[in-house]
Amino acid sequence: MAPTGQRPGRYRTHSPHFDAAFRRRLETLFRWRRDVRRFRADPLPSGLVERLLAQADAAPSVGNSQPWRFVVVEDEGRRRAARAHFAAVNERALAGYRGERARLYASLKLEGMDRAPVQLVAFCDPDTDQGHGLGRLTMPQTLEWSVVLAIAQLWLAARAHGVGLGWVSLLEPAVVAEILAVPQRWRFIGWLCLGYPEEESPEPELERLGWQRRTPLGERIFHR
Amino acid sequence: MAPTGQRPGRYRTHSPHFDAAFRRRLETLFRWRRDVRRFRADPLPSGLVERLLAQADAAPSVGNSQPWRFVVVEDEGRRRAARAHFAAVNERALAGYRGERARLYASLKLEGMDRAPVQLVAFCDPDTDQGHGLGRLTMPQTLEWSVVLAIAQLWLAARAHGVGLGWVSLLEPAVVAEILAVPQRWRFIGWLCLGYPEEESPEPELERLGWQRRTPLGERIFHR
Repeated sequence: MAPTGQRPGRYRTHSPHFDAAFRRRLETLFRWRRDVRRFRADPLPSGLVERLLAQADAAPSVGNSQPWRFVVVEDEGRRRAARAHFAAVNERALAGYRGERARLYASLKLEGMDRAPVQLVAFCDPDTDQGHGLGRLTMPQTLEWSVVLAIAQLWLAARAHGVGLGWVSLLEPAVVAEILAVPQRWRFIGWLCLGYPEEESPEPELERLGWQRRTPLGERIFHR
Repeated sequence: MAPTGQRPGRYRTHSPHFDAAFRRRLETLFRWRRDVRRFRADPLPSGLVERLLAQADAAPSVGNSQPWRFVVVEDEGRRRAARAHFAAVNERALAGYRGERARLYASLKLEGMDRAPVQLVAFCDPDTDQGHGLGRLTMPQTLEWSVVLAIAQLWLAARAHGVGLGWVSLLEPAVVAEILAVPQRWRFIGWLCLGYPEEESPEPELERLGWQRRTPLGERIFHR
C-alpha cells in the first residue's frame, strides 16, 4: 500500500463505533476465556484455524514486525513426542513441591495435548527484517512479546467461536524445536491446544481446584 | 472461593454463546485497534481507567499468578522526565539508521507522551507468590509474558470505548524504574499512553507512512 500519511482524515468518517451492548459482550468474553485443558475430541470446522490465525495476525507488534510463526502440528509422532516430553518436565515440576501442595499439584491436569484436535506452536523469528528493528533498541524482548500479543488475540477469537485454548509452557524450548524441526534460531513461545472444551466456567480451573485464589485488583494498581 | 472442582457442570447452562454478529464486531475491533501516538488532550471519563484495568486483570497468567503491576503516572515532573529520557533514547535509535531510512525514521512520531491524558506503566513483579510458581519451571519469562497478555486485553477494552493506546518501548527499564520510584526488583514492561485518538484508521501508521508493509499471513504459517 502506498504511503497515505498526507491524507490523515481519510478513514475518519468510516471509523467504527462500539456500543455499550458490544462492550458488555466483550467483558463477558474476557470473563469466560479460560486456559482449557479438557477438550472434546471432535474437530474444528474446516477453515476455522486459518480464520483464527488471521485475527491473531492483526495483533500489535513492535515496529510492525509481525515476528510470530505458527506451526500447525498434525503429525501424530511429533505430538506423542511432545506429550512425553511434557510428562517428564511435569515430573520435575512436581518434585519442587512438598506435602499437601505436592499432592494437590499431582492432581492437576495442566495440558490437553492428549485430545486437543488442533495444536499450534508459536515461535518468534528473531531474524525477521520486517519493521527494520524499530522500537526494540533498549528492550529486544519486545519481539517475543509481540508473539504473546498475537496469542492473546488468537485466544479471544477462538473463545468467541466457542473454541477453548490452552497454553502449555512446561516444555524445554530446545526440545520442542527439535521435535518440530524448525529453524534453530526461532524462539519457542508456547504450545497451544485448541478444541471445544468439555466444560465452561468463568472461574480459572486453578481457582476451582483450590490451587490459587484471585486477589483484589487494588493490590496491583499504584499511583505516582 | 471454595474449590468446586467436584461440580464441573455447575456453570454449563449459563455459559455464553457469542453469535456471528458479535464475532464480526470483534474482528472489526482487532482490525481497528492501533498503536496510537497522536492523542487529543481531553480527559477520559471518570472511572474509565479503573474499568479498563479490571478487564486487563481478567487476562490469562501463568499459574494464575497475575504478576502485572500498573502504575498510574499523574505527576507532571515524572512524566516530563520520562519524555526527556525517551527523546534521548530515540536519538540513539535514529543513529542506527542511514540515508533515506534515517530521514524517514526522523519523521516518525513514535509516542504520545506529550499529550496522552492517561499514562499507565506496566511492570512485572517477579517475587509474587500467587500461583506458587506453577507453569514456569522451564520458561520463567512466562511471568513477564503474562503482563503482556494483560496489556493486550487493556488495549482491546480501551479501543472498544473509543480510547486509543500507544505502547512506548524505547526506554531503559532502569531509568523508568528510577523515575517512578518502584521496587527495584520489578521489571518494566511498557509505558502505555491512553486517550482519545486524533484520527483512526485500520492501517498501522508505520504502513501508512511507508516504513513497513504488511506481508501475507501464509508466510507465517507452517505445517509439521
